[in-house]
Amino acid sequence: MAMVKKIGLLTGGGDCPGLNAVIRAVVKAALKDYQMEVVGALDGYEGLVFPDKTMPLGYEQVKGILPRGGTILGSSNRANPFAMQIEKRGKTVTEDRSADAVKRCRELGIEALIIVGGDGTLKIAQELKDKFGMKVVGVPKTIDNDLSATDVTFGFDTAVVTATEAVDKLHSTAESHHRVMFVELMGREAGWIALHSGMAGGADVILIPEIPYYIDKLIAKIERREKYGSKFSIVVVAEGAKPVGGVESVIDHPDQPWQLPRLGGAAQRVADEVSKLSRKDCRVTVLGHIQRGGSPSPFDRNLGTRLGVAAVNLVAQGGFGRMVCLRSRNIESVPLEEAVGKQKLVDPFGEMVMAARAIGIDFCSASDARE
Amino acid sequence: MAMVKKIGLLTGGGDCPGLNAVIRAVVKAALKDYQMEVVGALDGYEGLVFPDKTMPLGYEQVKGILPRGGTILGSSNRANPFAMQIEKRGKTVTEDRSADAVKRCRELGIEALIIVGGDGTLKIAQELKDKFGMKVVGVPKTIDNDLSATDVTFGFDTAVVTATEAVDKLHSTAESHHRVMFVELMGREAGWIALHSGMAGGADVILIPEIPYYIDKLIAKIERREKYGSKFSIVVVAEGAKPVGGVESVIDHPDQPWQLPRLGGAAQRVADEVSKLSRKDCRVTVLGHIQRGGSPSPFDRNLGTRLGVAAVNLVAQGGFGRMVCLRSRNIESVPLEEAVGKQKLVDPFGEMVMAARAIGIDFCSASDARE
Amino acid sequence: MAMVKKIGLLTGGGDCPGLNAVIRAVVKAALKDYQMEVVGALDGYEGLVFPDKTMPLGYEQVKGILPRGGTILGSSNRANPFAMQIEKRGKTVTEDRSADAVKRCRELGIEALIIVGGDGTLKIAQELKDKFGMKVVGVPKTIDNDLSATDVTFGFDTAVVTATEAVDKLHSTAESHHRVMFVELMGREAGWIALHSGMAGGADVILIPEIPYYIDKLIAKIERREKYGSKFSIVVVAEGAKPVGGVESVIDHPDQPWQLPRLGGAAQRVADEVSKLSRKDCRVTVLGHIQRGGSPSPFDRNLGTRLGVAAVNLVAQGGFGRMVCLRSRNIESVPLEEAVGKQKLVDPFGEMVMAARAIGIDFCSASDARE
Amino acid sequence: MAMVKKIGLLTGGGDCPGLNAVIRAVVKAALKDYQMEVVGALDGYEGLVFPDKTMPLGYEQVKGILPRGGTILGSSNRANPFAMQIEKRGKTVTEDRSADAVKRCRELGIEALIIVGGDGTLKIAQELKDKFGMKVVGVPKTIDNDLSATDVTFGFDTAVVTATEAVDKLHSTAESHHRVMFVELMGREAGWIALHSGMAGGADVILIPEIPYYIDKLIAKIERREKYGSKFSIVVVAEGAKPVGGVESVIDHPDQPWQLPRLGGAAQRVADEVSKLSRKDCRVTVLGHIQRGGSPSPFDRNLGTRLGVAAVNLVAQGGFGRMVCLRSRNIESVPLEEAVGKQKLVDPFGEMVMAARAIGIDFCSASDARE
Repeated sequence: MAMVKKIGLLTGGGDCPGLNAVIRAVVKAALKDYQMEVVGALDGYEGLVFPDKTMPLGYEQVKGILPRGGTILGSSNRANPFAMQIEKRGKTVTEDRSADAVKRCRELGIEALIIVGGDGTLKIAQELKDKFGMKVVGVPKTIDNDLSATDVTFGFDTAVVTATEAVDKLHSTAESHHRVMFVELMGREAGWIALHSGMAGGADVILIPEIPYYIDKLIAKIERREKYGSKFSIVVVAEGAKPVGGVESVIDHPDQPWQLPRLGGAAQRVADEVSKLSRKDCRVTVLGHIQRGGSPSPFDRNLGTRLGVAAVNLVAQGGFGRMVCLRSRNIESVPLEEAVGKQKLVDPFGEMVMAARAIGIDFCSASDARE
Repeated sequence: MAMVKKIGLLTGGGDCPGLNAVIRAVVKAALKDYQMEVVGALDGYEGLVFPDKTMPLGYEQVKGILPRGGTILGSSNRANPFAMQIEKRGKTVTEDRSADAVKRCRELGIEALIIVGGDGTLKIAQELKDKFGMKVVGVPKTIDNDLSATDVTFGFDTAVVTATEAVDKLHSTAESHHRVMFVELMGREAGWIALHSGMAGGADVILIPEIPYYIDKLIAKIERREKYGSKFSIVVVAEGAKPVGGVESVIDHPDQPWQLPRLGGAAQRVADEVSKLSRKDCRVTVLGHIQRGGSPSPFDRNLGTRLGVAAVNLVAQGGFGRMVCLRSRNIESVPLEEAVGKQKLVDPFGEMVMAARAIGIDFCSASDARE
Repeated sequence: MAMVKKIGLLTGGGDCPGLNAVIRAVVKAALKDYQMEVVGALDGYEGLVFPDKTMPLGYEQVKGILPRGGTILGSSNRANPFAMQIEKRGKTVTEDRSADAVKRCRELGIEALIIVGGDGTLKIAQELKDKFGMKVVGVPKTIDNDLSATDVTFGFDTAVVTATEAVDKLHSTAESHHRVMFVELMGREAGWIALHSGMAGGADVILIPEIPYYIDKLIAKIERREKYGSKFSIVVVAEGAKPVGGVESVIDHPDQPWQLPRLGGAAQRVADEVSKLSRKDCRVTVLGHIQRGGSPSPFDRNLGTRLGVAAVNLVAQGGFGRMVCLRSRNIESVPLEEAVGKQKLVDPFGEMVMAARAIGIDFCSASDARE
Repeated sequence: MAMVKKIGLLTGGGDCPGLNAVIRAVVKAALKDYQMEVVGALDGYEGLVFPDKTMPLGYEQVKGILPRGGTILGSSNRANPFAMQIEKRGKTVTEDRSADAVKRCRELGIEALIIVGGDGTLKIAQELKDKFGMKVVGVPKTIDNDLSATDVTFGFDTAVVTATEAVDKLHSTAESHHRVMFVELMGREAGWIALHSGMAGGADVILIPEIPYYIDKLIAKIERREKYGSKFSIVVVAEGAKPVGGVESVIDHPDQPWQLPRLGGAAQRVADEVSKLSRKDCRVTVLGHIQRGGSPSPFDRNLGTRLGVAAVNLVAQGGFGRMVCLRSRNIESVPLEEAVGKQKLVDPFGEMVMAARAIGIDFCSASDARE
């Protein structure tokens, strides 16, 4: 097997602290251990499709990036070479540009691709491999920690640290006044950030997508706390939290990408209902993209570094079509097809949730505390 | 002049990191330097009006509270002995209970009061002095830093640190995507937090109540940035920011205290307009009460400590009817009547704003940058 | 099997962020899920031997302790009921007081003990079980993360965060001057903190006990960096780092417990040698006990909480003589005898070290980089 | 008066968080408000003397540097154009190269210099003005905050935050064991960092150069604390702290710049004595250069920004030979000759020290507490 001489590297999807650690590790390990060159594609898959969207990556480019959030390569939430949105005469049309991407790689001398991304980005990687025989290696990335093929993803720890700091701060101010504090955290489908931050921050209630809530149980919990002397309550709400029975559909505008997603959907909605039904003084915080920013935690830097090095090793060993991952204390790899499409959700009766319940956290579901 | 033997202490108004530093300093200085006792009134002026709402404060009670946010005495935003809201047979009625407060102090042996609070709380203190001859000493407290009689108030630095961290975090994630990030910070009438955090966090635009903005200037600024290669913009919005000409009145419900203040008024409103007018991808963060929480910064701890000690010294010297304050590097005092009712607002053409403009920050007013 | 009605709880050994999370979780889970009472023994095993060194633990006692470092129960590095140091007529004598400990437990109605501690503390727990049939459950605790029976111990993540922040800060100042910065981190026998913090902080060299170093390789590395344009180097040194061949023995005074351990042994010694041999400007930082303090990271809080709840469940299920632990994402348990006495050291050729080498970190051993 | 067209900018002396804020502000304000060019001299005055040690500074160069510690221009502790150390045939000789510096400025078209530095750096600036008529404007910089002409210097707040975090962390671990914790902070001649961090961190004892200490008073304080139930004490020691009567002279090697300053002089020396005299368990932390690193606090970023803008304004207005400074809430300027050579020391009987004493902090001097 001839050694790969040039690797293409791209980061796709939403932002995630630790991406720069991966980039730095890929570049350093490729150069030092294998004398491979690395080319970065800018703004996710856009970099493979449009001209002038690549940059050579050497020691100079990755200097000092380890402690920085974001990705020096830029990213894109939408770019998909199989369905690329292109501006043509003032209109946005969707075209399959995958062949261009493959051609560009060939022109640039890229023999293998390291693709850092979440489920969507990795599915495209697999498609590139299946349709064109591209040599791809995946590195898992999701702030939500909902990929089942890896114990944990980088970025998640940093997001939990940021969210927990917010909950910690609400504690001190909540305690001085009679109030219910709501804080909305990321998690449309998986409640991991809310669960971990809520437990670590000492929240009283955690509402997550996996455990639909009863609003009256929430109010009962707050009133039970008041009865026993706690004049405040802190409610952590994942973006995707929903009441039993679901919410009336919120109009989305998938055809109008500039249309603002309604702010604070979940937390504001819950706070409004509590306020209306119980006349309590409610305050809402929406952390938003702050959870995706900031200097990565040491854990995330090291996980990113280890995965980046492992991805290069996989390229050198010809382990294409696979994704590197963390299992217990070890870096391993799995076939991409096993990795994608399997979401890891919070188990409503798993050990974490039961531990949360044991220390008095209420999920306001049918199985939760009664007086 | 006979020495005061017992001091009453209360904290009123919104939360502010550094309150516990004041409480600790008052208690320690009173005991150590003057052998005065200290009694804490709970939940602001409520503690002077209702029974069983006081606690003796000694070394044990203030142990370990210096680094903690909030106030161990609790606070109240509304309690006013001259217009106390009282639940009577299911209804809320307003009664003048000021005489009760004075009587309670006498019963408890409280000879002087140290009142820690903002403009509203200190006005009541002055009224207690004017109407009943109460011996009061004020300690200024406002997260908004809008008291004119003191250079700076404790709590403000901590709030600016928290808000700047948020802006810092948005930077890393904003840089990876094409986006406009809005972050709403405290400041209904005074834009100090937004101005300081925006400058320190490297915001591109700062909207504050003192400088009404033009929405089209905001969009022009964002587009100018794009033209020169910056694919993202960060817009800091004070709660009270308003467009030139004002906004249509938002219905408030002062008679319904449980009515939730509309979330994210300012930032959401501006983001909606930008999104609608320019079709840009906008994201909103609302920090809310997080700005009032958390461990006070060293600056705020020391300012609180110095003001607390100075307040006790003032009591010991008979300097009643005065408020302690910071002037340059010195702790001084001023008559309460000079201190209250004078709000310190951002000067739209002052040195801070001009410095912000010099480094390219746009306030989107008539005087701001044209291309 | 009759249900245990009262649990004794103690924390032993060096400080570790997350201890209060364990205590809080044990108390809350015991009360809520099993109506068991909890009694805390103060200052480690001293609490079982001396009178008046226990306290009942209820909701009130554990309120607000989750984000706090240290342990509300106090700890002790030396207290061993089988060899208790006792002051008798001005002299310190060593006595076996284990029978007293057992008797005290019986008097207090303690039917089972949850022992939180490191290898030494848990060995004593096992001895209490073996000799007296005490019903014990262990919870692993070591800042050094060197227990082989668990993937990771709480406190370690917080220590790494603190140490990485220090290395991060040295970076900015090192870069402005021509200097070699040494920072000494904890780890007498295991280099985990130094390895993780050094990798996360972007250190140039990491010296750990498991990989003896050559001083001339260290100097060569620094000079190689200078040659390629880096005017500074950052060297992370574990307390127990040693040169190939070892160091001349440092006189210890085990009989004189007040004798100060020689400050900064490792880092200062290495810096002195580098300075002497190469005339470089060297600066030393010794983090010391700061690594054991501070608010636990969210990871450590949650790990502590989960282990505390699991320990109570183990007591309820009669799983005595076992230690709870983390394996991959799951909380499990192992027999105490399997858990103690097996130190987990850094593998000099393991994946972590190889990843560190791949990104250019030098361990200055025979296997490390040559030019 | 003809407008200056090109400014030279240099940063001298020890590192200080906020330097990059000054650089960024100078560049942005010069370009935006006056269309002046800015040239940066590298490594302090070395940049004016040696060839190829300057760089043009534009928007691109200052992008993203605001939150970063250090200085992108590098600095130098020793470089003095009037007494430049030069390597000549393997020897270090000292030469007056000031005329070269002036000539280089002329060649580069530099018409005015903005010099950011401490007392030593600013004295050289004044000398350049006096001897050669150079147009200089000074910006004060010292981590130690000991310049009398300005209320506060940037960098100081960040250093105090870092040091206070260290003291905070020692608290949690000190409380769990019976111990005396010593932490050595910067301050050879001025004790401001130790005083502010000690007060903010709740230290029990603060030893600073301005208040010589008695070792027996220190031990008495620790024992008094033990007697009243506090099993630990935290002692903050400034580098330059000294006992009444002074310490035996430590041999310095000014001729051997590579000679390492003895580590932890002050804290270790005090801890050794306490340990020897009282047999207490003492632990030492030496923060070292960590205090000079890290992202500047919002206060320091804004102070640096305001001073940088003010320096450019002063250049534009022809206010040469002056230094910008902060007085109360205002940015002002003073003649350089008034600014240099006047150290601001802690007043042993000033308000800050008396406030510290009032809350029970002991300085172990003749005037401090007796039982």
